[in-house]
Amino acid sequence: MGYLEKIQGPDDVRALPLEALPELAREIRERLIHVVARTGGHLAPNLGVVELTIMLHRHFRSPEDKLVWDVGHQGYVHKMLTGRNDRLPTLRQYGGLSGFLKRAESEHDIWEAGHTSTSLSAALGMVVARDLQGEKGKVVAIIGDGALTAGMAYEALNQIGHLRADLLIILNDNEMSISPNVGAISHYLTKLRTHGGYLRTKEEIEQLLLRLPQGKRLTRVAERVKESLKALLVPGVLFEEMGIRYFGPVNGHDFTALDEALQQVKKLRGPVLLHVVTKKGKGYPAAEKDADTFHGIGPYKVESGEPIRRVGPPSFASFFTRHLIRLAERDPRIVAITPAMITGSGLKPFLERFPDRLFDVGIAEQHAVTFAAGLANAGMKPVAVIYSTFLQRAYDQVVHDVAVQRQNVVLAIDRAGLVGGDGETHHGVFDIAFLRTLPNMVLAMPKDENELGHLLYTAVRYDGGPFALRYPRGEGVGVPLDEEYREIPIGSWEVLREGRDLMLLAVGPNMIALGEKVAQLLARRGLSAGLVNARFIKPLDREMLAEFAAKRIPVATLEEASAQGGFGSAVLEALAEAGQLGIFVRAFGLPDRFIPHGSVSDLLRDAGLVPERIADELYARLRGDALAPSVREEGGIGS
Amino acid sequence: MGYLEKIQGPDDVRALPLEALPELAREIRERLIHVVARTGGHLAPNLGVVELTIMLHRHFRSPEDKLVWDVGHQGYVHKMLTGRNDRLPTLRQYGGLSGFLKRAESEHDIWEAGHTSTSLSAALGMVVARDLQGEKGKVVAIIGDGALTAGMAYEALNQIGHLRADLLIILNDNEMSISPNVGAISHYLTKLRTHGGYLRTKEEIEQLLLRLPQGKRLTRVAERVKESLKALLVPGVLFEEMGIRYFGPVNGHDFTALDEALQQVKKLRGPVLLHVVTKKGKGYPAAEKDADTFHGIGPYKVESGEPIRRVGPPSFASFFTRHLIRLAERDPRIVAITPAMITGSGLKPFLERFPDRLFDVGIAEQHAVTFAAGLANAGMKPVAVIYSTFLQRAYDQVVHDVAVQRQNVVLAIDRAGLVGGDGETHHGVFDIAFLRTLPNMVLAMPKDENELGHLLYTAVRYDGGPFALRYPRGEGVGVPLDEEYREIPIGSWEVLREGRDLMLLAVGPNMIALGEKVAQLLARRGLSAGLVNARFIKPLDREMLAEFAAKRIPVATLEEASAQGGFGSAVLEALAEAGQLGIFVRAFGLPDRFIPHGSVSDLLRDAGLVPERIADELYARLRGDALAPSVREEGGIGS
Repeated sequence: MGYLEKIQGPDDVRALPLEALPELAREIRERLIHVVARTGGHLAPNLGVVELTIMLHRHFRSPEDKLVWDVGHQGYVHKMLTGRNDRLPTLRQYGGLSGFLKRAESEHDIWEAGHTSTSLSAALGMVVARDLQGEKGKVVAIIGDGALTAGMAYEALNQIGHLRADLLIILNDNEMSISPNVGAISHYLTKLRTHGGYLRTKEEIEQLLLRLPQGKRLTRVAERVKESLKALLVPGVLFEEMGIRYFGPVNGHDFTALDEALQQVKKLRGPVLLHVVTKKGKGYPAAEKDADTFHGIGPYKVESGEPIRRVGPPSFASFFTRHLIRLAERDPRIVAITPAMITGSGLKPFLERFPDRLFDVGIAEQHAVTFAAGLANAGMKPVAVIYSTFLQRAYDQVVHDVAVQRQNVVLAIDRAGLVGGDGETHHGVFDIAFLRTLPNMVLAMPKDENELGHLLYTAVRYDGGPFALRYPRGEGVGVPLDEEYREIPIGSWEVLREGRDLMLLAVGPNMIALGEKVAQLLARRGLSAGLVNARFIKPLDREMLAEFAAKRIPVATLEEASAQGGFGSAVLEALAEAGQLGIFVRAFGLPDRFIPHGSVSDLLRDAGLVPERIADELYARLRGDALAPSVREEGGIGS
Repeated sequence: MGYLEKIQGPDDVRALPLEALPELAREIRERLIHVVARTGGHLAPNLGVVELTIMLHRHFRSPEDKLVWDVGHQGYVHKMLTGRNDRLPTLRQYGGLSGFLKRAESEHDIWEAGHTSTSLSAALGMVVARDLQGEKGKVVAIIGDGALTAGMAYEALNQIGHLRADLLIILNDNEMSISPNVGAISHYLTKLRTHGGYLRTKEEIEQLLLRLPQGKRLTRVAERVKESLKALLVPGVLFEEMGIRYFGPVNGHDFTALDEALQQVKKLRGPVLLHVVTKKGKGYPAAEKDADTFHGIGPYKVESGEPIRRVGPPSFASFFTRHLIRLAERDPRIVAITPAMITGSGLKPFLERFPDRLFDVGIAEQHAVTFAAGLANAGMKPVAVIYSTFLQRAYDQVVHDVAVQRQNVVLAIDRAGLVGGDGETHHGVFDIAFLRTLPNMVLAMPKDENELGHLLYTAVRYDGGPFALRYPRGEGVGVPLDEEYREIPIGSWEVLREGRDLMLLAVGPNMIALGEKVAQLLARRGLSAGLVNARFIKPLDREMLAEFAAKRIPVATLEEASAQGGFGSAVLEALAEAGQLGIFVRAFGLPDRFIPHGSVSDLLRDAGLVPERIADELYARLRGDALAPSVREEGGIGS
């Protein structure tokens, strides 16, 4: 029996002798590699923090001492050491362990996150609360170097330095955010890392100072030299200038070095940053070699690291990139922008084809969108490719810099809809609600990968302002791609299936497939239900709606997004304005609660978006006892 | 005739001799002081940039060279020098000049803003576009020191340094954001300013280096000293570490110094930052003395600077603070957070009463909200006081850190609704749409300043998650305040006036007043219209709605917010779910376009939210030819 199996909680980690830790680390890595091979997940980040996590639990007593993990996708090791090792194989599955920290799972998970760079703000809040309440306990924020490119981390550092908050920041520097880091801060950290053997004591410096010439003319200069020498003693001058004491760099895979460094810094008061250098994917050759791919990965073969791919069409993201390359070949104004998601958004082929026309801005969605607005302002055709969930970070920039100024920015919204295993912090289910309410915005979603190309073509040719184009995570539908692109009239829907008794207005490939099944089920029960590809969420196809109203054909809406403020709500508004509410039957979408993690089909079932249930409800409303009053011939208001 | 009157554009500014500039500056200041005394506006920021604006237009040829003004509220001088001096008295009035830059006003306004810290991202976009298109022209971003506390400025600096973009940044350092600055960056800039006479040449340093001992043991140390000496040569090491060359500080009111500095930096390529020190309110004693109040001010007496106050109740913001103080006296868990808006949000009395329980985080809304979440997470009752328009900056933090984790954060949303003269970038008209769609969120708005207290009491006692409480800019209604606070049942509405033919569901004081007028107009025409104080936007009072449905009483909604996705839309959703759409008549709210600047009454008229028009439409729908089909007894669907 190994060490890992015996660990029920942090006390057991602390009880082990230092000499046992390398073996514990080995066991943890082995289990991680084998479990994630089946579940998929954030393997590389976790392999990088094995030693660090062990040492943090030895030096701090969770939960009295608070470990605030940024993002939380590097929390698997923490889970294994806090009583959840046995449940690790349920990771990211419906009803199983979350791939991030979850307060409901353990008292040791004190802060939840899925987006980066929130830990410093949260930890500062905990520090201030602790001090105001006269409580004890250390607060430790563990943040990656990539997370430091996001503005909110800087906003927090600014106040941490200002308040001289008693907070320990562990900078987990693996030279990567998700993809390799970009940006000036990254260069700066690289410089810190590679400088290597910094002076460890003041002695050498002081000797030097003693030998400085004392001539009158040079005294002032010498004073300045002395002043500036703190940049030597404490190399992290950038942090120091913000009032945060810098220590490091420390090898994050060396137990002894970590032990010594933590021993030193945990005694200090005030804001302290310990720079720990780790290797993403450490200990698994395939992941070390390609940490980018192994950042978040699906199932793979343990021996080779080779991904186990299901057969199927390529992803929507890769179709998107294919279309973008074709369009960029013809139009030199097209440039692409990504916030650290070259791999995630499938943009590598674009980068290879147009290395000068792809801008990876780091984890910095706010800047990404306004940078795009600046490009558009100067005549370019920027395509900002951002996951739906991360676009939330740039909401004000979309409002204030893009929509108000009517800039010709294409917002390519990747992973719109349910995303599966990443769960509630990552589902792209609010973008319809927060974008469709903005003036000047066009918002579209294709039915398949072929129409994605036509809509992208339409978007880059449109010069009336912003054009948001959302597409799902996951595979394409499997249709052939047209040779030539064509413009799709803005605000036009497409009838896919005629119907006399009902029209289902569906947004996006998943909902169109669902609508087709619902229509088939209703057909068996004698109802003629049609299906519309509602590819424009804004503007709506008001003509088509008016036609249905004129023919008194009831409509129902289907969307894989928050039903609150969503597409169905937009249809309701349009019908209310036209005085045509009588034809509206029901809006189907995601309920008013956060959707957990699991497979997309599990989650659709969880949300009630399954054909049988929808068909039943529609049948009941149209024909059954609970006959929808608004579509009854006699009208009136039911009880 | 003075210089100013003759200036039709930047060419005229360039044609003046250097000696004439002080007189021009004097004329500009005099006019600013007199015009803003009548119009109100951002006086102090503009008084601070008179010399700087003149010199920028002499050294750069707008619009070929691009001047990108951050925020734009300091653009009055720029407007005066670019052909708009004659229209200055129309400032901030309906149909008049905007208080910010506006592309529709002038070719010299190339970028619009109302929120801070967007200029660097936008300017970088323009630089990249220029270079990709092989064009010429300098791009100059002018950004205040306060704006540097916002994360998005840092995100932009990070990429500017990385790309070595050929961009000139003018740091307009007036030691203030809106209120005096806080934060580590501010301390850092103060240090830069006060260090004063930095070494101007390398000579002294090099002499020193030559005299350094060359002994073997010290060589390595000497090398490091040499390396670190750049911190002396170029004192802005924080910027330098990000790859941006730092120059300054320069006195921003000294034409000769500015002239020399701009001459020097404009020849350079790559990212350069020129640190210009200015005084907010310069040249007007009242504004110099209280730059905070004169940041954005209403009409005042020129002689004394004394504000001309209309008689009326105090503002909603000051009532809010009064309530907050009373509640904080009883509950030590209550702390307040503001993003640089102590004055704007009327929080000074709270600061005086509880100096340790108010946290001004700087212009950093993202951090403000997550910091609040961290405080809540550790048992405090944080009240984050943020203007509706600025809360847009923290949308993801509200979703991801507050709503997902169900943190007990009170979001006090100041300036919800139309704000008047600040115009389209500042109206608080989207928060209903972006907050009501979030799970776990409670969203309320009181009918008056008394109910504001009860709702705040309810909010701080609520421990089911976030509670957003919005209140308008402007004066209270003028009702007395109750002695004791009471909880208002969450999700409960209040019938203010009974009605048989229609119920108007109105949100907030302005709409309730409007609803009352509409009801009176309808009464004269024989319709009995009631009025409901729909104080909870989420959750809705579904019981009351069901009651109206049971009695077949039609409803219409009134909100001073985007009708797209707004309160009316929420009522529609609820009725659709209940199969009760038949009672819905019409949602009145702001139309699907950005609302310009002007007085709130001008803007309500602009948006069609006037009693006569609403009464006419309701009458027509309920009784007229265009009889609303959904509320006709016989039902059916109109054409």
